[in-house]
Amino acid sequence: MISVIACTNRPNSNSLKVAQYYINLLQEKGIACTLIDLNALPEAYLFSALYHNQGKDLVFNSIKEKIAQSEKFVFVVPEYNGSFPGVLKAFIDGLDYPISFKNKKCALLGISSGVMGGSLALSHLTDILNYLGMHVLALKPRITRIEKTFINGEITDTVVKDLIEIQVKDLLAF
Amino acid sequence: MISVIACTNRPNSNSLKVAQYYINLLQEKGIACTLIDLNALPEAYLFSALYHNQGKDLVFNSIKEKIAQSEKFVFVVPEYNGSFPGVLKAFIDGLDYPISFKNKKCALLGISSGVMGGSLALSHLTDILNYLGMHVLALKPRITRIEKTFINGEITDTVVKDLIEIQVKDLLAF
Amino acid sequence: MISVIACTNRPNSNSLKVAQYYINLLQEKGIACTLIDLNALPEAYLFSALYHNQGKDLVFNSIKEKIAQSEKFVFVVPEYNGSFPGVLKAFIDGLDYPISFKNKKCALLGISSGVMGGSLALSHLTDILNYLGMHVLALKPRITRIEKTFINGEITDTVVKDLIEIQVKDLLAF
Amino acid sequence: MISVIACTNRPNSNSLKVAQYYINLLQEKGIACTLIDLNALPEAYLFSALYHNQGKDLVFNSIKEKIAQSEKFVFVVPEYNGSFPGVLKAFIDGLDYPISFKNKKCALLGISSGVMGGSLALSHLTDILNYLGMHVLALKPRITRIEKTFINGEITDTVVKDLIEIQVKDLLAF
Repeated sequence: MISVIACTNRPNSNSLKVAQYYINLLQEKGIACTLIDLNALPEAYLFSALYHNQGKDLVFNSIKEKIAQSEKFVFVVPEYNGSFPGVLKAFIDGLDYPISFKNKKCALLGISSGVMGGSLALSHLTDILNYLGMHVLALKPRITRIEKTFINGEITDTVVKDLIEIQVKDLLAF
Repeated sequence: MISVIACTNRPNSNSLKVAQYYINLLQEKGIACTLIDLNALPEAYLFSALYHNQGKDLVFNSIKEKIAQSEKFVFVVPEYNGSFPGVLKAFIDGLDYPISFKNKKCALLGISSGVMGGSLALSHLTDILNYLGMHVLALKPRITRIEKTFINGEITDTVVKDLIEIQVKDLLAF
Repeated sequence: MISVIACTNRPNSNSLKVAQYYINLLQEKGIACTLIDLNALPEAYLFSALYHNQGKDLVFNSIKEKIAQSEKFVFVVPEYNGSFPGVLKAFIDGLDYPISFKNKKCALLGISSGVMGGSLALSHLTDILNYLGMHVLALKPRITRIEKTFINGEITDTVVKDLIEIQVKDLLAF
Repeated sequence: MISVIACTNRPNSNSLKVAQYYINLLQEKGIACTLIDLNALPEAYLFSALYHNQGKDLVFNSIKEKIAQSEKFVFVVPEYNGSFPGVLKAFIDGLDYPISFKNKKCALLGISSGVMGGSLALSHLTDILNYLGMHVLALKPRITRIEKTFINGEITDTVVKDLIEIQVKDLLAF
């Protein structure tokens, strides 16, 4: 089972659309996968789920269960202020250790409006996931200028599109 | 005006206590300063304040106002999962650009239960604050084994205590 | 074939001794391995081997050949000035792409005189090796206070010693 | 006195040309500055100057003297293999502490053939310089696709050119 995580809670995000695109790629190869959408976190996640109501939120518990049952992960990571969105780290801070990520494997895909594509975001996230014991695939493609290069559910930049195809194969063999 | 930010929303955190310690150091030198406690963020911050109710939360607006009026900052940064807490980045993601941080100056102080002291946390945060145009003081002390080295509001590790005294002087001269 | 790289050219370095210790661990398990000692680089490596005499240095060519034939790597990485030694990156800058590292796998082991253990060094090196297409094992142990914890070829800190045993198993299964 | 450092020893490098461009900008404002060209390091720098002949190389000693006398620095940093050139870190490893960089100030300018512009290179270098006690200016412009955007000693990308003008002003006021 592979979980594909849309790493923002922004409503109607490009990350969510790219996550769905990625799920299609995996399903075409017959791989069982599931979507984790950070927009589905409870409204008061930062306080209730993390602290005074820890373990009692049914929605978050069901997400944690999906994570625990997944062996591999894909993180679709938008660039916010020179790194990844804070909500992604807050989400990770609420997961159980070691059952969530330790000795598992993942692939990272960066997306950005600008041309830099979030290389710092992917570096920071690699540090954190390695710290938690998860191996990160070396190949980390970046979809830059997302508004121009991801149209109607298709990636128009063929170089990046090919890199993502390679990433999918690498992740399955990882 | 210097804002001292306790960079977690965990209730009764060591970060909050160390932030208050730091405020005392500044006030002894006659410096006007204010505390920003991330535990004071609205419960539904991640969704309401960032997205569907943006700009309408009175508590968050008053925090943003304090940030905008500060010329310097101190970030008291606990280590969570190999970096800083997600809530800190979520907080930064909700601030206005460029009025919050651009061309301003700050100091970072790491705290941790373990011996590593969060050097990756401070590196990630430096990347983000530099990206937003804020200069970060080179000296970034770390209070490690916080439960043993910060007792009754006093730092018992004299090496670290001296480094923080130097950091205060450096920040005022920065 | 696993190459174990002592990542400094300092004569008689602790990194070299720890690399030999690591080779013993691998050989006890029947794994073929070889030592790459950066002290064996040509004296004028920075200029001659990298630029005006590129490809003509027999010693460096034989090292490149060993790298090309290895499928896995162990980097024994001392902390110099908040990162790894410059000679390590200069060495990497002289290697051929993609035959050296792409789609291969490696493990990183940090060593330091101080208590921090070079977490930034290992983070920077992970960025570079990932960029070159090599997968980095999540577990990156650090031998801190090396002068006190590595005596007569033995690691006296049993927690770190056990982590290295786990790293060896993880690398073989990676 | 400001030292402008061309951070590679590659003969006839773009970094050297951009360093000379930067020196012109500073001299137009009446600022005393000097060029540090890593191509001027001794051939056997990695071994002789760092280890068995430490302190005895007259050329390196004169460079160290220039560094010690400078109050501010500009690093012109090309991207090599996802970070800065190894020779830069080897150079830094040979400098004296704390007289070289501690409590001084610097600006970083990235250059690259590709579109990424070396954001990881500048992040790694910031970590190292902060570790050594030097403050790094927040604004770190990047000249991407250098072969197309730096022609006959002029920067043709007006956005980047303007950012460098701002960086010069910021560095003088820093």
